[in-house]
Amino acid sequence: MDRRKFFASTGTAAVAATTLAAPAIAQSMPELTWRLTSSFPKSLDTIFGAAETFAKIVSEATDGKFHIQVFPANEIVPGLKAADAVTNGSVEVCHTASYYYVGKDPTFAFGTAIPFGLNARQTNAWFYFGGGNELLNEFYAGHKIYALPGGNTGTQMGGWFRKEIKTPEDLNGLKMRIGGFAGRVIAKLGAVPQQIAGGEIYTALEKGTIDAAEWVGPYDDEKLGFNKVAQYYYYPGWWEGGAALHFFINTDKWASLPKNYQAIVSAAAATANVEMCAKYDARNPGALKNLVAAGTQLKPFSQEVLAACHKAATELYDETSAANPTFKKFLDAQNAFKADEYLWFQVAEYGFDSYQIRHRSKG
Amino acid sequence: MDRRKFFASTGTAAVAATTLAAPAIAQSMPELTWRLTSSFPKSLDTIFGAAETFAKIVSEATDGKFHIQVFPANEIVPGLKAADAVTNGSVEVCHTASYYYVGKDPTFAFGTAIPFGLNARQTNAWFYFGGGNELLNEFYAGHKIYALPGGNTGTQMGGWFRKEIKTPEDLNGLKMRIGGFAGRVIAKLGAVPQQIAGGEIYTALEKGTIDAAEWVGPYDDEKLGFNKVAQYYYYPGWWEGGAALHFFINTDKWASLPKNYQAIVSAAAATANVEMCAKYDARNPGALKNLVAAGTQLKPFSQEVLAACHKAATELYDETSAANPTFKKFLDAQNAFKADEYLWFQVAEYGFDSYQIRHRSKG
Repeated sequence: MDRRKFFASTGTAAVAATTLAAPAIAQSMPELTWRLTSSFPKSLDTIFGAAETFAKIVSEATDGKFHIQVFPANEIVPGLKAADAVTNGSVEVCHTASYYYVGKDPTFAFGTAIPFGLNARQTNAWFYFGGGNELLNEFYAGHKIYALPGGNTGTQMGGWFRKEIKTPEDLNGLKMRIGGFAGRVIAKLGAVPQQIAGGEIYTALEKGTIDAAEWVGPYDDEKLGFNKVAQYYYYPGWWEGGAALHFFINTDKWASLPKNYQAIVSAAAATANVEMCAKYDARNPGALKNLVAAGTQLKPFSQEVLAACHKAATELYDETSAANPTFKKFLDAQNAFKADEYLWFQVAEYGFDSYQIRHRSKG
Repeated sequence: MDRRKFFASTGTAAVAATTLAAPAIAQSMPELTWRLTSSFPKSLDTIFGAAETFAKIVSEATDGKFHIQVFPANEIVPGLKAADAVTNGSVEVCHTASYYYVGKDPTFAFGTAIPFGLNARQTNAWFYFGGGNELLNEFYAGHKIYALPGGNTGTQMGGWFRKEIKTPEDLNGLKMRIGGFAGRVIAKLGAVPQQIAGGEIYTALEKGTIDAAEWVGPYDDEKLGFNKVAQYYYYPGWWEGGAALHFFINTDKWASLPKNYQAIVSAAAATANVEMCAKYDARNPGALKNLVAAGTQLKPFSQEVLAACHKAATELYDETSAANPTFKKFLDAQNAFKADEYLWFQVAEYGFDSYQIRHRSKG
């Protein structure tokens, strides 16, 4: 983006030079209205709320000059078409999960999370200081997208099951609502992944059309009432150790922004990023308590199940890497980063959390 | 702050109304120069860097109109006097750790971390969505401070020791460089806490004036060369599960800012917050590898040592609460929040990290 930024700012300077009588500031504070399409419904105040936070900050920071209208999924385009709308310029920006677009290229998965990948903090470390943002934006540029990290759910839950999953064999034949890459992983173990929109999962589970469904975590899941139609709530969601959201901005629109607006948009996205994760972390505990009080049985996936899924994921990565050198480049980069991250996280972070958890369960 | 904000914006509106000929924008983009004093030296590019990030964003977002000059510790005032400089208005803003000021009131500890408190993500959850920011700013207002979270180190290390610490009794008589509240905790176990500035720790350890010293974590500690004068590197730093930094802004100066500048400053602080933790998380692993390769012996504090320190911390909290109702109010609020947080974190987050760590050590 550096070359585009250079041209953009040169352009502004040239205009300013020819209109010296007008205050220079006017050049950098144009009146703008952008449309943002979210991949999420308004009811998800955590994820959808991150786009509202973003737009609010941009508006306040520009005294209302730069107005970003936020539309929930389906008002302009369906949630899973948000990136396409940015690529073709029908909206300037969207708020979405990059892995919704693995059908275009599996490399999109690295923008959100890959199975057995990074946790939320490690994801930010990779994005901001591990080369992740640069690598992703090189890739996204091919889709006319400039991306800014814009939220994280933290580790998600493994979802709702109508029967217990004790061994990898219990996944065989299981019809599960689960998206993208994770679906392809459990398919290797004989499960039948289903793509079902959020609003239709409850009925599918209730009718027994599916045996299991994953969504996000306690706070979002409670709203959809899954606990009424499935008893077992498994953890962890090994396919989303820290699912990141992004603001995808059309590259031409990004380049057309004055530099100060680019700075404001970037800071607004970073704020949405840290606040969305904080909101999930603050809201999930209460919801988890409600669910358990209502009879939900919390169950950890056994180490055997996790190991079998991990093996299947590794096979999928090998196959995908063989067919797609860009995917391989990302996988190698992120795997190396991950190995170092857990070398460190297993020391102070994990040592602290382990003690706190142990002490809590005693007291 | 709401009342002050109201007067500030009313004032701006009144001025604008009487000068209709001038572009309204000029009212909201005044030329300003603020001075920021950091509590840290330039050499700590992680912590000091967060203040630079903050100032850079504010400048870029305002087209250079709002310039914040960043001074390292000791150029204007010593690092531990940064908040005082804000309170008395000799600088507009500082970047500091709230717990440096527990001598004024132990309640300041909650702005950074208390022993056996929250981890970094939980701290953000408490600040942004658990009532923490509101509670803190009510308290800080008494010191003419408006605070914005501005960084986190993550869980720190437990420090460098010249001899092994196997039981709580090994702390008896130990002269350790350790600040604030944690020093008072280990004093209950017979240790002798010492206040020594960062630049003098190495010599004190080398000469044997002290037996142990805590600083931050691998990335910062490696720079100071502690591994050359102490062999054992303990974890976790139970007194700093997630040490938060803040931007402290003089309340009058904050109220005098146009609303758009307040929005920019807030977003710049949030960006510094998420980026600083990401930078530590990205840089610590490499430093840890260097230290271990150079012969450092990594050691976990035993559960017995942790439990004894926790018991001492609880006694200290009880005593402090009895004498200081504000401290008690904060402690009760944060303890309740913490219990809920770990209820949730022990499920998906800990489940995911545990598997990843176990798998890594196998592979």
